[in-house]
Amino acid sequence: MMTKEALTALILEKKAALSLTWEAIAAGMSLSPVFAVSACLGMNSLKEEPAQKLVTLLDLPAEAKTILMACPTKVWDKAIPTDPLIYRFYEVIGVYGPTIKSLIHEKFGDGIMSAIDFSMHIDKEENPAGDRVVVTMNGKFLPYKSW
Amino acid sequence: MMTKEALTALILEKKAALSLTWEAIAAGMSLSPVFAVSACLGMNSLKEEPAQKLVTLLDLPAEAKTILMACPTKVWDKAIPTDPLIYRFYEVIGVYGPTIKSLIHEKFGDGIMSAIDFSMHIDKEENPAGDRVVVTMNGKFLPYKSW
Amino acid sequence: MMTKEALTALILEKKAALSLTWEAIAAGMSLSPVFAVSACLGMNSLKEEPAQKLVTLLDLPAEAKTILMACPTKVWDKAIPTDPLIYRFYEVIGVYGPTIKSLIHEKFGDGIMSAIDFSMHIDKEENPAGDRVVVTMNGKFLPYKSW
Amino acid sequence: MMTKEALTALILEKKAALSLTWEAIAAGMSLSPVFAVSACLGMNSLKEEPAQKLVTLLDLPAEAKTILMACPTKVWDKAIPTDPLIYRFYEVIGVYGPTIKSLIHEKFGDGIMSAIDFSMHIDKEENPAGDRVVVTMNGKFLPYKSW
Amino acid sequence: MMTKEALTALILEKKAALSLTWEAIAAGMSLSPVFAVSACLGMNSLKEEPAQKLVTLLDLPAEAKTILMACPTKVWDKAIPTDPLIYRFYEVIGVYGPTIKSLIHEKFGDGIMSAIDFSMHIDKEENPAGDRVVVTMNGKFLPYKSW
Amino acid sequence: MMTKEALTALILEKKAALSLTWEAIAAGMSLSPVFAVSACLGMNSLKEEPAQKLVTLLDLPAEAKTILMACPTKVWDKAIPTDPLIYRFYEVIGVYGPTIKSLIHEKFGDGIMSAIDFSMHIDKEENPAGDRVVVTMNGKFLPYKSW
Amino acid sequence: MMTKEALTALILEKKAALSLTWEAIAAGMSLSPVFAVSACLGMNSLKEEPAQKLVTLLDLPAEAKTILMACPTKVWDKAIPTDPLIYRFYEVIGVYGPTIKSLIHEKFGDGIMSAIDFSMHIDKEENPAGDRVVVTMNGKFLPYKSW
Amino acid sequence: MMTKEALTALILEKKAALSLTWEAIAAGMSLSPVFAVSACLGMNSLKEEPAQKLVTLLDLPAEAKTILMACPTKVWDKAIPTDPLIYRFYEVIGVYGPTIKSLIHEKFGDGIMSAIDFSMHIDKEENPAGDRVVVTMNGKFLPYKSW
Amino acid sequence: MMTKEALTALILEKKAALSLTWEAIAAGMSLSPVFAVSACLGMNSLKEEPAQKLVTLLDLPAEAKTILMACPTKVWDKAIPTDPLIYRFYEVIGVYGPTIKSLIHEKFGDGIMSAIDFSMHIDKEENPAGDRVVVTMNGKFLPYKSW
Amino acid sequence: MMTKEALTALILEKKAALSLTWEAIAAGMSLSPVFAVSACLGMNSLKEEPAQKLVTLLDLPAEAKTILMACPTKVWDKAIPTDPLIYRFYEVIGVYGPTIKSLIHEKFGDGIMSAIDFSMHIDKEENPAGDRVVVTMNGKFLPYKSW
Repeated sequence: MMTKEALTALILEKKAALSLTWEAIAAGMSLSPVFAVSACLGMNSLKEEPAQKLVTLLDLPAEAKTILMACPTKVWDKAIPTDPLIYRFYEVIGVYGPTIKSLIHEKFGDGIMSAIDFSMHIDKEENPAGDRVVVTMNGKFLPYKSW
Repeated sequence: MMTKEALTALILEKKAALSLTWEAIAAGMSLSPVFAVSACLGMNSLKEEPAQKLVTLLDLPAEAKTILMACPTKVWDKAIPTDPLIYRFYEVIGVYGPTIKSLIHEKFGDGIMSAIDFSMHIDKEENPAGDRVVVTMNGKFLPYKSW
Repeated sequence: MMTKEALTALILEKKAALSLTWEAIAAGMSLSPVFAVSACLGMNSLKEEPAQKLVTLLDLPAEAKTILMACPTKVWDKAIPTDPLIYRFYEVIGVYGPTIKSLIHEKFGDGIMSAIDFSMHIDKEENPAGDRVVVTMNGKFLPYKSW
Repeated sequence: MMTKEALTALILEKKAALSLTWEAIAAGMSLSPVFAVSACLGMNSLKEEPAQKLVTLLDLPAEAKTILMACPTKVWDKAIPTDPLIYRFYEVIGVYGPTIKSLIHEKFGDGIMSAIDFSMHIDKEENPAGDRVVVTMNGKFLPYKSW
Repeated sequence: MMTKEALTALILEKKAALSLTWEAIAAGMSLSPVFAVSACLGMNSLKEEPAQKLVTLLDLPAEAKTILMACPTKVWDKAIPTDPLIYRFYEVIGVYGPTIKSLIHEKFGDGIMSAIDFSMHIDKEENPAGDRVVVTMNGKFLPYKSW
Repeated sequence: MMTKEALTALILEKKAALSLTWEAIAAGMSLSPVFAVSACLGMNSLKEEPAQKLVTLLDLPAEAKTILMACPTKVWDKAIPTDPLIYRFYEVIGVYGPTIKSLIHEKFGDGIMSAIDFSMHIDKEENPAGDRVVVTMNGKFLPYKSW
Repeated sequence: MMTKEALTALILEKKAALSLTWEAIAAGMSLSPVFAVSACLGMNSLKEEPAQKLVTLLDLPAEAKTILMACPTKVWDKAIPTDPLIYRFYEVIGVYGPTIKSLIHEKFGDGIMSAIDFSMHIDKEENPAGDRVVVTMNGKFLPYKSW
Repeated sequence: MMTKEALTALILEKKAALSLTWEAIAAGMSLSPVFAVSACLGMNSLKEEPAQKLVTLLDLPAEAKTILMACPTKVWDKAIPTDPLIYRFYEVIGVYGPTIKSLIHEKFGDGIMSAIDFSMHIDKEENPAGDRVVVTMNGKFLPYKSW
Repeated sequence: MMTKEALTALILEKKAALSLTWEAIAAGMSLSPVFAVSACLGMNSLKEEPAQKLVTLLDLPAEAKTILMACPTKVWDKAIPTDPLIYRFYEVIGVYGPTIKSLIHEKFGDGIMSAIDFSMHIDKEENPAGDRVVVTMNGKFLPYKSW
Repeated sequence: MMTKEALTALILEKKAALSLTWEAIAAGMSLSPVFAVSACLGMNSLKEEPAQKLVTLLDLPAEAKTILMACPTKVWDKAIPTDPLIYRFYEVIGVYGPTIKSLIHEKFGDGIMSAIDFSMHIDKEENPAGDRVVVTMNGKFLPYKSW
């Protein structure tokens, strides 16, 4: 059986061969781009319907559907990312982590933002002084409970 | 001269003594809460006007203004944060980093989102199934240039 | 203002001076022992009522109530614990982590066990061949959602 | 001779081909699911009888029995796990480790919970507010002895 | 599709076979040597024109153009470099980092030097007492903004 | 005897009290700013003349001269710097390290750039599109010798 | 209340003042030297009788008895020891670990040697070619159990 | 030429095929089991005679003798071992390291136990309460010398 | 083209096949043994003449000359070496590093010993009490310069 | 009782006050400079005679003799040294470690150079092209023994 890594490589090849954007692939799966890409990169599992749509859209082999639906083991190699684009987000968490913590506690009480009941969008804000990346994270607040 | 750390401790004490929220302190400084808190926690410098306003609002000693205006050395101890609230953001970067990278490159070309020409807001989205934390990051896209 | 660490030291001293067990302290706070101890050790915040009860029970200074109610920053020094009692639990996660993952996914689908909407109990099972420690963890299943 | 890793890959393939659950496989081996899965994933050795049962159930090659019975070298790659499901357990040990230590010492005296003379079960607790994962660990208390 | 690593290996082979220097290759791409080499080593992407020129110059296969134009994931293995030539630069950052920081802040205010809107040149300064390496970095100053 | 760290703190205080810039202090020591600052921050030793000049300029206690002239043990805490200004230089070494190595070897043969027989300057290049930081490093080429 | 560290420092002082050897102190506690020293260094707890004997022998303050009887948190700073004497033992585990594992499994089956139900002795073997250190470890074999 | 790793794999296969124990193999080499196993696992070199005996006993290819006699580079992957059996020994060094150091210095003066002029034995002590593992290390004391 | 690693493997094979010592190979290259071996192991580059001599002596393929003359990227895997022979040198640097630093500064002033303009020899000193290894390092003193 | 660290600080102060060189201090102790300095820096213990001589020479308090004679715990903070002078020696071990290993094995057989039965000298070799540091290490060869 193909691994998730092998399937990702195949998806990237098909995407290139068909000259499809991630936006188009996500639309074809009826999913938002962030979630669709994360599943294609092997970091999320798909429900049956979008899995089937992706298989059809990219003409993937039949077993791909099962692999796309399997629960992934989420692994990253670099505890501190080296790629500058990803590192900047790491830096933001380092610099603003305690600030985020203080403000969430002030607004919501003791608890955390879920990274599971969670969604993210990436948008482009056109700006004459230089376009801007807008990242929106939306996660359920999970209060600590005592027992 | 007081260190930034000592000043932060003093600010937290004054904040508690005056029963002020971060929202109120930020409003008193005419700044957004995220930036205001980050400066109070010693991770950003203030321009003279908000520094003076904070000194007045919290009745800080005179030298505080200079310290608030000084360029901080941004340091965090834990390469991988342990606090669950902050860790969840680290995890988001680990899980979605390559996805964010793919989508920014698709929308903007080769480059990164600036963590310097950058702003962030934290909002509360009321929801009967449980309120939600909404974090918005807005950073200038910086294209790689060749030379 | 006293730090959480200083308050923990004071609680330990009062506990010794009054010859109280953690069981008795937890009962006095109307909380389970695990949660009560974790709050006394500075790893969880208390609601007002149990905070007040603890202050009264141990005759703590007035400011202790506020400190007990504050949201803690959860920090541990050793990424890999050295104390043998704690290390054994780390080892269990290392050895059985993928097994736990496989079984939770089989029973619940893709998602995780919450460490926030979570409780834990520690019991003693008497056994002529040697008493046994029984640790029960109970966490809400949080399914991954697509968007 | 096949390595334990190769055998695990084969078991996963056979499991998928036969549409068997871990529960069913464990039942076929007359073992609890946690232990059965850990052996299939190469983290525990099997006695001859369950090894033979597994070979028969999944139609594994003859040499599989020997490999399943061999003492494994237990290795994990990530000192701090990245997969969110497994990380939450790591976090629980970080947050509650000193609490667990205090309570075991109070109930049992100086010593540890064995991770060898040990069993674990994973159960599903149905709950209208969201089903819950219940993990039960049961380990022999091993008192420190002086000499 | 070839990976960036495989393409780099091919470029190095072609470069040796054709006895070309990096200077000559960069000239052939109408780019400065530092940028040209970094793209050949897979650490920067090329615009279409220089990519085509390189393909022609080194007689690379057609797909090379696409690969050269793809946004690379920038990765380095050694957090602390071991090669003496590279380590000396790491050491310079360690020894002079706080000095550089103090002087940039004095000259420009709070902010950083961009590593993206950035160029670098390496020159040879002939000197009877031993030739000297001159490295010039030129990066846009990015001021921190408040919001 | 005062440590280098204590002396640095004193220098920073005197600098602030006298409203002197690093440029002015360096000029007063007849040294370039980078070297002068690095010595004030305890990362380089001074010859007697500039040490005496600094003592006079900042009205430091007599023992300061000896301390400024002592050979420092150069230490930095963070193998990977966290401060964004310093990190960007670390990133430049990570991204361009192999490029720098290739070009130095092409121009000079096998060897390294000395970080000891070395100087550095930091300049401001005014630019309507945003001022630029120019860092120039100049180090003696040291060829590997065989024996 | 004194910490274990402070008590250890006091014990070392008293030991020096009274010119007592560890052998003599252990004999006075009716314990073997290894266990007695480990308790004096804060790495093991004592039963009441030897604790009282040590307090009497070294004329320690009354509270020392409670501290000696408390369950210690066992911590070491260096994951890889630097002191040559201790490092050699670390090296022995690195070099011979898989050998020890193979032989214990051959002799006992799958399981481990307990580090809790464990004793150690250190002896001197006189030898004209140079005296020899003899370290004997004796730990209960704990078989893995299935469930 | 075969690597030491490949030879170890071959030895393990031959050992299984011939149903030989390590005890028997060691006896056939006229060596103690610990040393014999460590050489078979590639962590020690053999003299010609036992190398020849092993080649004959296991019917290894002729080049095996040379490889067994070659000086190995001793490498282990995990600075902190994960396998529970090996970890327990690591833990013993962590907990008792300073104790061992104190007692060796008391008995022998300043110096260390050699890990080179060293032998080790592993024995089984039968015990109705559970058999025990006895590990004996015997290393020459090496005194520090002044010069 | 062969990598340096592949060439090293080939050299070791040829060396064994021809029963040549490193001493003999070095003599054949008219180089000292330390430098010759380091080049054969891929850690230094050769000038054309010794490269040609080595190719002839070991009957290496023609491309070997180019590879031997290429500037190597010097990499080592273990920040702290595990092999006992190499570790002892690491330990010497750890134990005596500050001593070496103090004495070089006393004799030479502020600066370092070059590791580039550097040579090393390894000799055997016969001694009835056990032969001794004599390692001599000879490196140019590089004074820090101010600018 | 003073710690070794406190005594080292006192020795450095006395050395400065008396304007003594390390050479002179070593001569006064009838020891070589390397050993004498390492003992003054707390990394080696002294025999009674040189300890007494040092106490007299520097007019140290009486208890200093005992402290100088105590067996030190040898600790260094940086697994990879940052100070350039010390790092160069680390680099030498990284670059030449396998070379040293190959040559010692060729000359002596399987074994190591002792870092305990060991001496080191640091000399200055005058040279018109720049003086040179000569470091000589002399350690007993310790052969691996089988048993």
